[in-house]
Amino acid sequence: MSFILSMMYSLVHTAFALQLKKSNNYLCHQLNVLLDALWQKALESRGKLCIGRTHGQAAQPMTFAIKLLGHLCELARGHMRLKEASKVISVGKFSGAVGTYAFSDEKIESRALSFLGLEPETVATQIVARDRHAQFFTALAILAGSLERLATELRLLMHGGVREACEPFSSKQQGSSAMPHKKNPILCENITGLMRLVRSYSMAILENQALWHERDISHSSVERVVALDATSLIDFALMRMTKIITGLVLDYERMSSNLADAGSSIASQAVLVALLDKGLWRSEAYDLVQKAALATGKNFKNALIEAGVHRWLKEEELENLLQAPTGVASEALLFNRAQKIMDSIFN
Amino acid sequence: MSFILSMMYSLVHTAFALQLKKSNNYLCHQLNVLLDALWQKALESRGKLCIGRTHGQAAQPMTFAIKLLGHLCELARGHMRLKEASKVISVGKFSGAVGTYAFSDEKIESRALSFLGLEPETVATQIVARDRHAQFFTALAILAGSLERLATELRLLMHGGVREACEPFSSKQQGSSAMPHKKNPILCENITGLMRLVRSYSMAILENQALWHERDISHSSVERVVALDATSLIDFALMRMTKIITGLVLDYERMSSNLADAGSSIASQAVLVALLDKGLWRSEAYDLVQKAALATGKNFKNALIEAGVHRWLKEEELENLLQAPTGVASEALLFNRAQKIMDSIFN
Amino acid sequence: MSFILSMMYSLVHTAFALQLKKSNNYLCHQLNVLLDALWQKALESRGKLCIGRTHGQAAQPMTFAIKLLGHLCELARGHMRLKEASKVISVGKFSGAVGTYAFSDEKIESRALSFLGLEPETVATQIVARDRHAQFFTALAILAGSLERLATELRLLMHGGVREACEPFSSKQQGSSAMPHKKNPILCENITGLMRLVRSYSMAILENQALWHERDISHSSVERVVALDATSLIDFALMRMTKIITGLVLDYERMSSNLADAGSSIASQAVLVALLDKGLWRSEAYDLVQKAALATGKNFKNALIEAGVHRWLKEEELENLLQAPTGVASEALLFNRAQKIMDSIFN
Amino acid sequence: MSFILSMMYSLVHTAFALQLKKSNNYLCHQLNVLLDALWQKALESRGKLCIGRTHGQAAQPMTFAIKLLGHLCELARGHMRLKEASKVISVGKFSGAVGTYAFSDEKIESRALSFLGLEPETVATQIVARDRHAQFFTALAILAGSLERLATELRLLMHGGVREACEPFSSKQQGSSAMPHKKNPILCENITGLMRLVRSYSMAILENQALWHERDISHSSVERVVALDATSLIDFALMRMTKIITGLVLDYERMSSNLADAGSSIASQAVLVALLDKGLWRSEAYDLVQKAALATGKNFKNALIEAGVHRWLKEEELENLLQAPTGVASEALLFNRAQKIMDSIFN
Repeated sequence: MSFILSMMYSLVHTAFALQLKKSNNYLCHQLNVLLDALWQKALESRGKLCIGRTHGQAAQPMTFAIKLLGHLCELARGHMRLKEASKVISVGKFSGAVGTYAFSDEKIESRALSFLGLEPETVATQIVARDRHAQFFTALAILAGSLERLATELRLLMHGGVREACEPFSSKQQGSSAMPHKKNPILCENITGLMRLVRSYSMAILENQALWHERDISHSSVERVVALDATSLIDFALMRMTKIITGLVLDYERMSSNLADAGSSIASQAVLVALLDKGLWRSEAYDLVQKAALATGKNFKNALIEAGVHRWLKEEELENLLQAPTGVASEALLFNRAQKIMDSIFN
Repeated sequence: MSFILSMMYSLVHTAFALQLKKSNNYLCHQLNVLLDALWQKALESRGKLCIGRTHGQAAQPMTFAIKLLGHLCELARGHMRLKEASKVISVGKFSGAVGTYAFSDEKIESRALSFLGLEPETVATQIVARDRHAQFFTALAILAGSLERLATELRLLMHGGVREACEPFSSKQQGSSAMPHKKNPILCENITGLMRLVRSYSMAILENQALWHERDISHSSVERVVALDATSLIDFALMRMTKIITGLVLDYERMSSNLADAGSSIASQAVLVALLDKGLWRSEAYDLVQKAALATGKNFKNALIEAGVHRWLKEEELENLLQAPTGVASEALLFNRAQKIMDSIFN
Repeated sequence: MSFILSMMYSLVHTAFALQLKKSNNYLCHQLNVLLDALWQKALESRGKLCIGRTHGQAAQPMTFAIKLLGHLCELARGHMRLKEASKVISVGKFSGAVGTYAFSDEKIESRALSFLGLEPETVATQIVARDRHAQFFTALAILAGSLERLATELRLLMHGGVREACEPFSSKQQGSSAMPHKKNPILCENITGLMRLVRSYSMAILENQALWHERDISHSSVERVVALDATSLIDFALMRMTKIITGLVLDYERMSSNLADAGSSIASQAVLVALLDKGLWRSEAYDLVQKAALATGKNFKNALIEAGVHRWLKEEELENLLQAPTGVASEALLFNRAQKIMDSIFN
Repeated sequence: MSFILSMMYSLVHTAFALQLKKSNNYLCHQLNVLLDALWQKALESRGKLCIGRTHGQAAQPMTFAIKLLGHLCELARGHMRLKEASKVISVGKFSGAVGTYAFSDEKIESRALSFLGLEPETVATQIVARDRHAQFFTALAILAGSLERLATELRLLMHGGVREACEPFSSKQQGSSAMPHKKNPILCENITGLMRLVRSYSMAILENQALWHERDISHSSVERVVALDATSLIDFALMRMTKIITGLVLDYERMSSNLADAGSSIASQAVLVALLDKGLWRSEAYDLVQKAALATGKNFKNALIEAGVHRWLKEEELENLLQAPTGVASEALLFNRAQKIMDSIFN
């Protein structure tokens, strides 16, 4: 009888642990669907050259598949974090009002929890310790950051000055209410905003840890909002991002023309390295190449020759260098690495 | 030559990975010292009865050792989180400006990084992805929450109305500048404040994830502040807390008298359970016991009898119930559980 | 026609401004009700002596009314912040897609907005700038902090070791589900948790400011959640706190006995000052008084005499000093100051 | 004597108030310098047409000056917030250990504080209430958001696909270490990161409000870090942004060619409005214009005619509509509005 009473007492907490565990499993599943969509899109865009950009500036060529694989691997780490968090939150307790088993029995606790797929809390207060929940919700916050990074990348690729990718846009969908010509990245912008919320929820959850003595109930109102809202928003964002990636329209011609516009100047690193190999000091070589690269309105090769590069590099050598390394070479290697991670998650 | 160049290029990032790894190791060590201090203090306070409090109210007796073991186990989970984070941040890259190995070789990268004790980033941009750093610094934020919980517990136990514990207070130390009679929990209050900072740093780090394209440098200024300040503050808090726990003055007499003051009314749960076993409806039994428990200025046993409890429980039965279960019974079990966790960390 | 179109275009934004303005007004009203309840309770507890505590330790006597007036004045500043924010968010725009009045007329905008009680945005993008909303929601976050401070104070005053105040507790209400003897500060703990949420929402709102170019829509999803949830939670907390303050049960006897328990040692500052007036060095006087104050199990006066204080202070002087100043003297002054602030809000 | 003692006691707090007040004044001055730089740059770019973009897509033409004026007005509101915060934090107290003037005199307090340019706290605890500091540091967080919005705008305008503006770049400065051809927006990216820090500091400060009873000292460690770091970072960001704006290189030709590239399709709103004026239903007109606007590889006018627009609009009417309104018309109005705000700050 007394055990039943203390079970009643702890039932709501146990139900919460089961809900969190189930939500976590479900989000892992939804994340797998997104990972699969990214993998398919990466396969589809294999070997497609585009500019790799740092600081928003053309840096070196890469393939679009490599870009997607980077996001895929980050999201796959998010999956691992959820799996780790799952173990940490799958914990219950029937050890009584202050965790001393005063009216209950640890053997029955152990049997009851194991039946539910939960572990007993090592040393409980009235409740399971809240660092466990903090781990789950900060894992969601980090996942939110990864989804925001992908959404931001797509927003930049849809920018009017870039136009290399486009969110799926149904033929019936209206664009801007007043400006019919626009295709706006509203799905990605929406995800960007929602991820701010998920991030902010984690702050409230972190403040929940320092409860007084063997517990106060201040954590409860926070959890009732955050447990529902943070998981729902991540679920929604995962589904929406899956839809975006699956239907993503890639404009390979635009990627090529952007690459061409960036011009041979993005080969400046190759020329710099070659000059160093010829024995120039770094500062000397750097000044020379920079001067040519920043000379506007000129062909880079001609600018290099005018700057005096021909004293060290023959025209033929220069031509070869200006065929910048494409990044295609490493694509297979990077697919292999990503494959291993996908295998570890899906098997 | 070209490889050396790209090594130079990535050197600062590699140094950062090594610094983070080393800081993490050092913080694990400092955390071990604190865990050991808690373990010693738990051994020392074995079997010492005190009130377990929920909502700041007397709930049921427990031992002071059990209280400490709960904190110890939470902090031990912080240790595991740091260990997991260590693997995730011990990652470097020499794969070039956008991660395509355009001027470098993955075999040399692999050898160089392995020499440094780092893993290569699976698919890099110009840098290692920032979800990794978010995992480390949110692990620190969760650890901060655990330290804050312990500091808050000690502040409450030092409260003028409780006085069951006292921070070490050197004989030469002055108390309040204007009020010589006071022993203030200033070390614990200091830790409480610092942990707010560590928590807030994690927000800036989470915002660092969504860099543009193959990287922008907005994360760098944040990391230069947070990497130093968050780890230093945690280090300081761990040392300070170790000093507090080691020198913690426990007032067992005061624990006993507080327990006595709480009176036999904290046995109300036992009486409630006994009445249920006798066949009363829960609401009937609850009303009856609550009425007696809240009758001020009366002995609980007499109040129960006046309320009519003797119709179901003989005076002898009642006497036994009013000897509330002490929580000492489960102490050995909880020590065993904590021991296993300590073993897994120290071995 | 074209103006109607651009009005349609901006209608949802205008509606949002009106909602925020109305919410703000409503919260000001709810806050007034709480301020009034605090004022009444302060009047009621006028002249009632209690311990003023710093660091959780007895410091000097004060009256309970003074304690409440401090909270009242902080909350009144929250009222002023809401009033200031009201002006800042009562702003609309009908200046077209990028704020250039391309298809609209600033005179019509001015007339339409003035009809709605709004000001036109000075220089708009597609929308009103989001620093305005940040001011409103951080004002709510600061108000949340003030409510949390009051809730925390009451939780401490209800602590089993203090028991100077008690949340209203209906005679039918059940206490702890398993422990019928407890009166838990669950309303205040609930407010504490909810205020964490309001604080965290402000982080998401602050991230909303840096929209791209003439606007992206990432702010919208955040605002749809936060505008509703943050204002509702503050409204709920204000109502709940009003109910708590109105029904707050004060135990003046317990305040007296806690004051007596703190003993004459809280007069240590008076003795210290007197010794300084007699010409002792500060360090000498401090050591002497501290030694006496920390001598446990002894009457403070006797401990002082044993420590040698009688060489500078006659017994009569000492007696007078040990009647610590009560803090009652300044009560009228502080009531006057609070009155002025109440007048400025209510008139 | 006793007053001097309590002055010593409160001296550190008074010094803090004076430091905050002085920092605030200094930041106001630095902000003025930035506002002036923005004003000069707005004058310089008067009448210079560029695309206004929403969702990163071309929306309607505007002038570059209007863009800058929007940022100027937002930053000017930041100035007003600092001024309001200045009053709120310029507060001290010499009212003793728990604010009751037990050993001090309110008249002397009033005289001493007025000498220092401070107001007395209305009803103090041991310290001035911390909602005051929260107001100052959230005002800085909002200012940080405004600076981040400007930095983000400039990063987007420097993007390789946009190139309408460029951070000042000294002729001696090296670009990317490995890629000499690049001009990276590193100053703006740096500001972006630093503003994340300022935002996060405000969270720790908001948590400082709920101190226990008449004060605990947990706020102090937070303030010692944040007061210094948040104000220094804002100061640094203001100076850096002033330098960027002053030396900002604007490429008006590129603005023109980007405007031309966006094509006449950005006049779609004008055509839509004209069709509505001719009596078409909104959905009918929208479908028709959208179809033409999204027809790639075609001249917008021809696409409109093919879509059947000529049934309602003569070719001449269409030609006029395709000369999209430039936004220049409203420039003078917006300058006037900004001027008024500048005047109110500088006079």
